Amino acid sequence: MSDDQRTRLAGSTSRRRFLRRSAVSVVGAVSTAWAERGFADTSPFDLPREPGDPLSGSSPRSKYVNFSRIPEAGPGVRHVNPYDAINSKTPLNKLVGTITPTDLHYERSHSGVPSIDPAQYRLLIHGLMKKPLVLTLDDLQAMPSVSRVHFIECTGNGWENWKKADETLTVQNTHGLVSTNEWTGVPLRYLVELVGRLPGSTWMLAEGGDGAGVDRSIPLTDEILDEAIVAFGQNGEPPRPSNGFPIRLVMPGFEGNLNIKWLRRLKFGDQPWMTRWETARYTQLLANGKAMQFQLRMEINSVITSPSGMMEIRPGYNRISGLAWSGHGKIAKVEISTDGAKTWGDAQLNQAALPRAQTRFQMDWTWDGTPTKIVSRSTDEKSNVQPDRQSLIARMGTNALFHYNAQQTWSIDALGRVRNVLA
Amino acid sequence: MSDDQRTRLAGSTSRRRFLRRSAVSVVGAVSTAWAERGFADTSPFDLPREPGDPLSGSSPRSKYVNFSRIPEAGPGVRHVNPYDAINSKTPLNKLVGTITPTDLHYERSHSGVPSIDPAQYRLLIHGLMKKPLVLTLDDLQAMPSVSRVHFIECTGNGWENWKKADETLTVQNTHGLVSTNEWTGVPLRYLVELVGRLPGSTWMLAEGGDGAGVDRSIPLTDEILDEAIVAFGQNGEPPRPSNGFPIRLVMPGFEGNLNIKWLRRLKFGDQPWMTRWETARYTQLLANGKAMQFQLRMEINSVITSPSGMMEIRPGYNRISGLAWSGHGKIAKVEISTDGAKTWGDAQLNQAALPRAQTRFQMDWTWDGTPTKIVSRSTDEKSNVQPDRQSLIARMGTNALFHYNAQQTWSIDALGRVRNVLA
Repeated sequence: MSDDQRTRLAGSTSRRRFLRRSAVSVVGAVSTAWAERGFADTSPFDLPREPGDPLSGSSPRSKYVNFSRIPEAGPGVRHVNPYDAINSKTPLNKLVGTITPTDLHYERSHSGVPSIDPAQYRLLIHGLMKKPLVLTLDDLQAMPSVSRVHFIECTGNGWENWKKADETLTVQNTHGLVSTNEWTGVPLRYLVELVGRLPGSTWMLAEGGDGAGVDRSIPLTDEILDEAIVAFGQNGEPPRPSNGFPIRLVMPGFEGNLNIKWLRRLKFGDQPWMTRWETARYTQLLANGKAMQFQLRMEINSVITSPSGMMEIRPGYNRISGLAWSGHGKIAKVEISTDGAKTWGDAQLNQAALPRAQTRFQMDWTWDGTPTKIVSRSTDEKSNVQPDRQSLIARMGTNALFHYNAQQTWSIDALGRVRNVLA
Repeated sequence: MSDDQRTRLAGSTSRRRFLRRSAVSVVGAVSTAWAERGFADTSPFDLPREPGDPLSGSSPRSKYVNFSRIPEAGPGVRHVNPYDAINSKTPLNKLVGTITPTDLHYERSHSGVPSIDPAQYRLLIHGLMKKPLVLTLDDLQAMPSVSRVHFIECTGNGWENWKKADETLTVQNTHGLVSTNEWTGVPLRYLVELVGRLPGSTWMLAEGGDGAGVDRSIPLTDEILDEAIVAFGQNGEPPRPSNGFPIRLVMPGFEGNLNIKWLRRLKFGDQPWMTRWETARYTQLLANGKAMQFQLRMEINSVITSPSGMMEIRPGYNRISGLAWSGHGKIAKVEISTDGAKTWGDAQLNQAALPRAQTRFQMDWTWDGTPTKIVSRSTDEKSNVQPDRQSLIARMGTNALFHYNAQQTWSIDALGRVRNVLA
């Protein structure tokens, strides 16, 4: 840096006064709603006179950034012994953009995180196919691969709100069981053609290598054959152990539990296997007492992440930002209401939407200081519209535990306190 | 998991024999080149009988994954005291897909990594504009934002190969100064319109808040106004300190050093400032002794990451995989030669190419065991073709240090040893 630049930048009193005077009257040709919040009137920070920290092997986070994440033991059961926890949620309230930091991708497990030696890893492919196969990790990594950005969502995401609304919940608590990463791996279709599909082979059993041996029956539709990935890459590196190291089955747009982690076995057959995971566990208890089975696809969804539960805002300008996603394809539109779902306006989308990936949306908003409710509502390319809570409950009742995709309402009281409410 | 499943999966001797017998003869309707490498013939690993590790606040990597990265002090200067290092390169040889793990995004610094308190952070915008502004981090985060996946590449990427080829180099050494992340922030055009552009305002000075105060003059073209981002997000979280926490200017497709880290100041004017970084440092010394200034855009490039320098391969099937990128836009095509650039074949692209982002390519290859050379050559949507080394040197000479984008050749000897060579 040259001396004259240092001189120009010296934080002189006159410069500071000038900025303080002029900044308040700034208006541009662009949307000026933002400017209502006013500007800082201090000079920029000084250049340091000493070298900084040395470069690193693995770039750490800033000590000022805190992504504390506390694993939970189920709906409403937080602050537990780590060994009793069954999930660890993504802190959506603290993130921007759409890619979830790899180490903050949500975790969900039925018997902890197995530690698998990649040299010992094997994938068995067998059943109603011409030839069974056992593959090593090297085998899989040597096959043709694809790389795609997709969300994975636990079917239990949102379960906190089926029956009642706990006002102390953050958006991490209510919606943190969804994350978006780039997944790289072998297209399922390639493996199926490699082992030679037989005419009657219409279902596939995928089994995980954890102590619980989670296994699910998956219909071999053309869509699933085209889109499922036997993944050895998560955001450029091997999947983290909590997300399936070394191999995870990625089923874009379908229930998280079908995205089998620590994938150990693919078996083919002519009917579903009716495992305990699809008979006892991942079925929906309906209002009439019957259970719905194989509700596999994750629905259209969205949530405002800022402002959101347990935040506090001040009257004046507040940017609204959030995430939308759909198991059916691309997000086409997101609408936002700032008057409790009476009137709606279109949100901006941050980038071109990708199919079955989260899309960031945002909108200018000036809060007048009176109590209100804010809500988002998404629409996907197949014209699915995110339901309001009343419609969802009318259809599903309140016994259900999974697939809660109702519009999320945040109430804001006169003090600016943002809280989780049902509508 | 049901008992009958456990029974079916028991690693019985007969099952293992069956797999061993049958696996070797597998052929499918798909490309069978991969099958030449043979298959594993052991049964899959057993399900663990104990719960695994507990869930976590921040998901760690597998203990079996090693991304060791040793900061370097310049071309050919490795294994230095960390305080003398000037860069830390991305281990391209170990990664898959296109998103670079955030903590492995390359680092490059002229005076270490400053530790900036976000509460103290200020961005000054001043000069030839209607109104100067000082913005806090909160101000910037409250503005309209975009999220885009882009590569950032140090202009020195490839500098190891300008004059001679060190055969001990890996692709991390030769090409590890490029990474691809999702960047989120305020479009430069929004800020320029906010402060009110004046007719003569055609250049912008961007200054970093590190001890070196790196500052560069940037022409205010429509393209740059449309694409530059004042970024507060890197792969969903605040930029890592080594990549500009809390604010980095992202200049998609342009020299890494224009992507000013720890952004402290934007000044507008009617001509470049001729800072030391654009007069002494980042100019190109040509063959005739003259220096070229403001060679801002990063050119079309590609490199095979596997197999690559210091790897060893065996005769038979070997998948070729690599990365291609261009500062001009999207990658349109990648060709691969496995006979030292005599004949070329089209590589597959892993996904639809994004503009100014890395694209993963791959190709089946069966090595016959005779010494050869493998090379990749990329073409972008503007029909720019990556030059061979001879053409690049003919144009630029060998005094240059920056913008080395020649086709990378890896030689393979009779023992399968892959080495860095010039052509």
